[in-house]
Amino acid sequence: MPETLPPGSTIGILGGGQLGRMLALAAARLGLKTRIYTDERDSPASAVADATFASFTDEAALSAFAAKVDVATCEFENVPARALDAVASRVPVFPSAKSFSVAQDRLTEKDFVGGLGIGVAPYAAVDDEASLREALRRVRPPVLLKTRRFGYDGRGQALLRSEAEALPALEALAGQPAIIEGLVAFERELSVIAVRGQDGGIRFYDVVENVHEKGILATSRVPAGVDAECSFEARRIAGAIAEALAHVGVLCVEMFEVGSAKPRLLVNEIAPRVHNSGHWTIDACQVSQFENHVRAVAGWPLGDTERHSDALMTNLIGDQVLRWQEIAAEAGMALHIYGKENARAGRKMGHATRLYPRS
Amino acid sequence: MPETLPPGSTIGILGGGQLGRMLALAAARLGLKTRIYTDERDSPASAVADATFASFTDEAALSAFAAKVDVATCEFENVPARALDAVASRVPVFPSAKSFSVAQDRLTEKDFVGGLGIGVAPYAAVDDEASLREALRRVRPPVLLKTRRFGYDGRGQALLRSEAEALPALEALAGQPAIIEGLVAFERELSVIAVRGQDGGIRFYDVVENVHEKGILATSRVPAGVDAECSFEARRIAGAIAEALAHVGVLCVEMFEVGSAKPRLLVNEIAPRVHNSGHWTIDACQVSQFENHVRAVAGWPLGDTERHSDALMTNLIGDQVLRWQEIAAEAGMALHIYGKENARAGRKMGHATRLYPRS
Repeated sequence: MPETLPPGSTIGILGGGQLGRMLALAAARLGLKTRIYTDERDSPASAVADATFASFTDEAALSAFAAKVDVATCEFENVPARALDAVASRVPVFPSAKSFSVAQDRLTEKDFVGGLGIGVAPYAAVDDEASLREALRRVRPPVLLKTRRFGYDGRGQALLRSEAEALPALEALAGQPAIIEGLVAFERELSVIAVRGQDGGIRFYDVVENVHEKGILATSRVPAGVDAECSFEARRIAGAIAEALAHVGVLCVEMFEVGSAKPRLLVNEIAPRVHNSGHWTIDACQVSQFENHVRAVAGWPLGDTERHSDALMTNLIGDQVLRWQEIAAEAGMALHIYGKENARAGRKMGHATRLYPRS
Repeated sequence: MPETLPPGSTIGILGGGQLGRMLALAAARLGLKTRIYTDERDSPASAVADATFASFTDEAALSAFAAKVDVATCEFENVPARALDAVASRVPVFPSAKSFSVAQDRLTEKDFVGGLGIGVAPYAAVDDEASLREALRRVRPPVLLKTRRFGYDGRGQALLRSEAEALPALEALAGQPAIIEGLVAFERELSVIAVRGQDGGIRFYDVVENVHEKGILATSRVPAGVDAECSFEARRIAGAIAEALAHVGVLCVEMFEVGSAKPRLLVNEIAPRVHNSGHWTIDACQVSQFENHVRAVAGWPLGDTERHSDALMTNLIGDQVLRWQEIAAEAGMALHIYGKENARAGRKMGHATRLYPRS
C-alpha cells in the first residue's frame, strides 16, 4: 500500500533548478512543503522553498536532508547514484534508481527501449578508436557522436559527416564512453509527458510537438500536428516505458516521427522527471505536470491531465528574457521567469505560454 | 512615471494569510521575490516566502521590513494606518492609504459609494442608545447591526428583527461604533474583481455569482446568471469606485442584485485587495487576480483577465478540508490547500475550483 502523505508533509527535491522551483510552487498549492537539496547557493528552487546547501557527494548532508523530509524526488536525471542511495536508505525516493540508471546512460537507455520492441535510431557503442571504426561500419555517416552520460541541451554532442571527422571528435571527448547515433531525417519531434502513480495508474498529457534550435528546446505546441493513430502510438510507447521502469512520477519520452507516407515513431530520449516540453501544462491544464509529479511522489490520486486550451510554449533563452515587459503585455500570454541572475547565452531564463481556445 | 520593477525585485506584503500566500506564489512565477510581514509565526504566507515576524505596532520592525523591499502592499484591509504610514515613508505602498481608510470603516465606505451616485442598502450610524433609536426610525427592522470596523466573514454582525432585540445587541458591541443596515431581499450576490494599474488602466474579470453560508463565502461561480446589461453595470460600478479611490492593484466590489423585473445593483462591500470570490481566476484565467495584483504593484503591464473556462469555486471551511483526497481525485478539479495546521470551525483551510468548458 502506498502511503498517502497528508498536507503539511515535506517533499525533498534533489536539485535546485527551475524544474525544482516549479515543483516547489506546485507543492505549495496543495499545502505540501518542500525542501531543496542543491550545491548552488542562489538556485532558482531554493529561493521559493527551504533548502539544504551541500555537495551531492556529502553523505552526512544527504542524511540530514533525508531526516527532514517524508519522501524525496529529483528534478534532474544526473543525480549521482550514491547520493540517491544515501537518501533512499532513509526515506522513500520516487522515481526509483532504476529510472535514473536507464536514463543516465544513452547506451543503457537505447538497449532498454529497443528491448521493449520500441524503435530507436540506429546506434553503436564507442569506447575507443577501434570501436569507433567498427561503429561507423555499422552506422554510416552522417551520425551524431554523443557522450553516454551527462549530456543535455545539445552538450556533449558532435555531428560527424564523414569518417575523417570522427577521430578528432572522439579525442575531444577525452576518453568518455560514447555512442554514435544515425542522424534521423524526421517529419516532427514529438514528446509525451506521462505520469505514473504508486498504484501503477498512468495518465498522459496530450502529445506535444517540439522544435529545437542549436540542441535546445525552442518551442512546444499542443495539439501536435499528428493524427489520432500517431497520438495513440506515442502514448502507448510512453506508457510501455513507464510501466517497464515501474516508474513513479512524471516521465517524458522524446520521439521522432519519421516517414510521411506511413509514419513511424523512434524514441530519442527518456527523461525520468518533469520536462521542459511539459511546461505548457501549467497554463493549459487543470493539473500541471509539476503538480502531478508531486501527487505521484506523495501517493496522492493523480490529477486531471485534460487540456482546456491549445498552447504554444516558447522558451526564453539567454537575453530573450530581457523582452519580459513586452511579453507580459501580450494578450493570452502567461509569463514565467525563473529568478536566475545572469542571462548567459544558452541559459533557460524563463518561458512564455500563449493560450488559444481549444481547437 | 510609475517605476517598473524588474524580475528579482522584492515585494513586501503586510499580512500572512492565504491571500498573502497566493500573492507570493504568483510573484514567484514572475521571478519576483516577496517578503511577508506577519505577527503569526506559522502563517500560510511565511511558509512560502521570506518573512519578518513582528507586531503591526512595532515601528522599528516595520522600518527594517521596508528597507528590505522595493514596494509594499497588503493582503488584508485592516492593517493599522500607522503601520501603513511607517512603511510608506520608506517605499511606495500600493494601494494607497485612501483605499484602506474607505474600506476599513463601513460608514465611510457607504458614504463614499453613495457619494458616487451608486446604490447602497439603507443605513444609519449608531454610536449609542439615542442614535440607535433614531437610526431604527429611519431604517426599519429587520436590519443588520454591524461594527463599523474589523468585521469579516460575518463577525461583528447581529440580525435585529425588532427594536426589542436592538439594545442587547448594541450592548454586546461594548461601545464600538456601528451602523445599522436595511436587510436587503436580493436575487443574487455578485462581485466584480477589478485591477487598476499605476497608469490608471483598469481591467475586469467576469462578474462572479456568490453564495454565502453563515456569513462566510461558500461558493463563487462564473459566469454569473445575469444578463449583459447587469454585467456591464456591475463592471461600471467597480470601475467607478477604483477610479474614485485612485486605487492601484486588485479591488473587489461585492453587490446585491435586487428586484427581478428591473434589477438594480446595490454595493454591499469594498475589499481593497485580492478577494476570496476571485480565487477561481487562478485556474480559469490566463493571469490570476493574484498575478495581476502583483503586476499592478510592481508597475508591470496588467495581464489578460480573459476566462478560458467556466468555473465553480468551493471554499473548504473547517473540517471540509479533510475531504482533500476525494476532491483531489475528481475530474476537472484544482485543489488548493493553505497550509494551516488547525482546521478550526469557520476557518478557511483551502478551496477547490471545478472547471468546465467555456459556455
